[in-house]
Amino acid sequence: MPSDRVVVIGAGPAGLEAARLAAELGSDVTLVEKHDSPGGMPIQANYAALTHGFRPAAAAMGEMIEAAMGTGRVDLRLGSEVTAVEGSAGDFAVTIGSNGSAERIDAGAIILATGFQHFDPGRETQQYQYYEFPDVITIADAESMLSAHEFVVPSTGQPPKRVAFIQCVGSRDRQIGNEYCSKVCCGISSKQAIEVRQQVPDARVFIFYIDMRMYGYWENEIYWPAQEQHKVNYVKGIVTEILSKGGRLVVRGEDTTMGRPMEVTMDVVVLAVGMEPSQGTRRMAEVLGLPTNKYGFVETDHDRLDTVTTTVPGVYVAGAATGPSDLDDSISAAGAAAAKAVAFLRNAEVLV
Amino acid sequence: MPSDRVVVIGAGPAGLEAARLAAELGSDVTLVEKHDSPGGMPIQANYAALTHGFRPAAAAMGEMIEAAMGTGRVDLRLGSEVTAVEGSAGDFAVTIGSNGSAERIDAGAIILATGFQHFDPGRETQQYQYYEFPDVITIADAESMLSAHEFVVPSTGQPPKRVAFIQCVGSRDRQIGNEYCSKVCCGISSKQAIEVRQQVPDARVFIFYIDMRMYGYWENEIYWPAQEQHKVNYVKGIVTEILSKGGRLVVRGEDTTMGRPMEVTMDVVVLAVGMEPSQGTRRMAEVLGLPTNKYGFVETDHDRLDTVTTTVPGVYVAGAATGPSDLDDSISAAGAAAAKAVAFLRNAEVLV
Repeated sequence: MPSDRVVVIGAGPAGLEAARLAAELGSDVTLVEKHDSPGGMPIQANYAALTHGFRPAAAAMGEMIEAAMGTGRVDLRLGSEVTAVEGSAGDFAVTIGSNGSAERIDAGAIILATGFQHFDPGRETQQYQYYEFPDVITIADAESMLSAHEFVVPSTGQPPKRVAFIQCVGSRDRQIGNEYCSKVCCGISSKQAIEVRQQVPDARVFIFYIDMRMYGYWENEIYWPAQEQHKVNYVKGIVTEILSKGGRLVVRGEDTTMGRPMEVTMDVVVLAVGMEPSQGTRRMAEVLGLPTNKYGFVETDHDRLDTVTTTVPGVYVAGAATGPSDLDDSISAAGAAAAKAVAFLRNAEVLV
Repeated sequence: MPSDRVVVIGAGPAGLEAARLAAELGSDVTLVEKHDSPGGMPIQANYAALTHGFRPAAAAMGEMIEAAMGTGRVDLRLGSEVTAVEGSAGDFAVTIGSNGSAERIDAGAIILATGFQHFDPGRETQQYQYYEFPDVITIADAESMLSAHEFVVPSTGQPPKRVAFIQCVGSRDRQIGNEYCSKVCCGISSKQAIEVRQQVPDARVFIFYIDMRMYGYWENEIYWPAQEQHKVNYVKGIVTEILSKGGRLVVRGEDTTMGRPMEVTMDVVVLAVGMEPSQGTRRMAEVLGLPTNKYGFVETDHDRLDTVTTTVPGVYVAGAATGPSDLDDSISAAGAAAAKAVAFLRNAEVLV
């Protein structure tokens, strides 16, 4: 039967914000999260500070969780997954599976917020030897170390003397099929570079990049301080391979500004891996019958200036399930998705 | 007396979207626009195509206007300005001036969507001679010519043979006080470069840049096609001055990839001017008592992962009034602002 409940799938930043706002707009919300705790990637991947004012990720996510749950209208289902959706807009039957049992609930609208996963740097980019060399890590690995205030050379446990970030791993790369730019890796790498300089003041830090995409305020909030206050070295250059020599890493490539080949020794190399649709995003796109683009992200009607409405009536999407997104993108889109979902239900009620 | 009306200030993309969604969520809306027609910068500045699928800007804005007005709950006040705001959240008295007369209306919440203005390239960047040489134009001027399908050399009326875009005019520039990146100029310049190549197939087109910030899908939707299908030439280089020689323009600077000085002749030079807060944004920040950052943009609580809530209860902001924004940013934030404004009013009603 027609329902004005909103089911939000995924309890990361976008899902929490969408759930909270749909609830504040008067809808009952079921928030479905496959992990055993809410917070999404910042919590699952143990992020250190956010690019927003360098706030601890756990504190910022904690506030979002509190805000959503504080509405008193959000039914949070942890360790749960949506396994089937039947019916149509205004009158969906959503099957939620948890620990082998299944429950069907009625919902009028659905908001998908299942996000991204980090590109697997073993996949077709093995020139960076992620699975071969312990001292080649990803920005996700770096977050965990920074979060614990233990940024060390993994193979020795010692503080590094030289750290290199390599940008665009799994992004802007036709060979692996990800031609898009992942938006946030420049900002996150620069933020991490600053944190490394703060935690290991003796370390020299280098960022090898194609273009530094510090759009908007990241330019003055992160990029300039990284260079001026924290002495991070930016090198426009392409890294072609990483070798191991005498227990340290050798980074080979071309310094395109200097127009010459380079070969530099590093203790830790951090791969700035890009975004790909999460398994949850791929699976939910199938369950809900949502068209995806060639990369597997869910399509919205961008041409019509709509960032959240899918082609399936009553189904909205927010955050990195639609493609590379920063936190502002995700939060804003979540608000828009909540507004459109609740507006749709209001309108449907009028029609009933 | 307490009101559940929402006043939206500015009828550009963000204002139209916010008005429409607040209306669809059940609020009566007064939409105040100082110009004599709605649509905001895309209409005022006569934009050609949007970066979204190269759709004609007028058509896309027309749809947004229709959607907002189609709700039947949006009272559009053209040629009008908010001149004073009294009272507080839930109970504002908003004075709207129009043609010398003034009217006070009650409102529960206010959404500011007064946007940006293009950086004035005469201001402290006179090395580019915008006001001296007729063939030095801005991306805003170029939009108008492309919109009319008359992309010509202004001084001769003839089709150009060589066109140069210069990026970051009024952005990423400490000397003029705008350290931020304006986000959209790379995308818009590249879109225009494609349009020039389509409308004037004999023209060679060059883009001089520091970093090409084609974040997200712009990489594959605009940047790669610009280079591969439309043969736009990207040159990482800094332009230091523009001279006039024999009726043509001479662009001087440094090609930083080649590491050598350059001096090239052009027929038209397009300055990719960045975003600054509009006069309306500055004025409304004063009227509403909203804190602004050092650039004059309205501040929101970014650290707390809120893109639209200002420090004044009941007052929200969306779009480029908060800083450089692309259309997706503006549309998403507008949805979030509508959701938060209406949620606030719902909550206030409960308290009354």
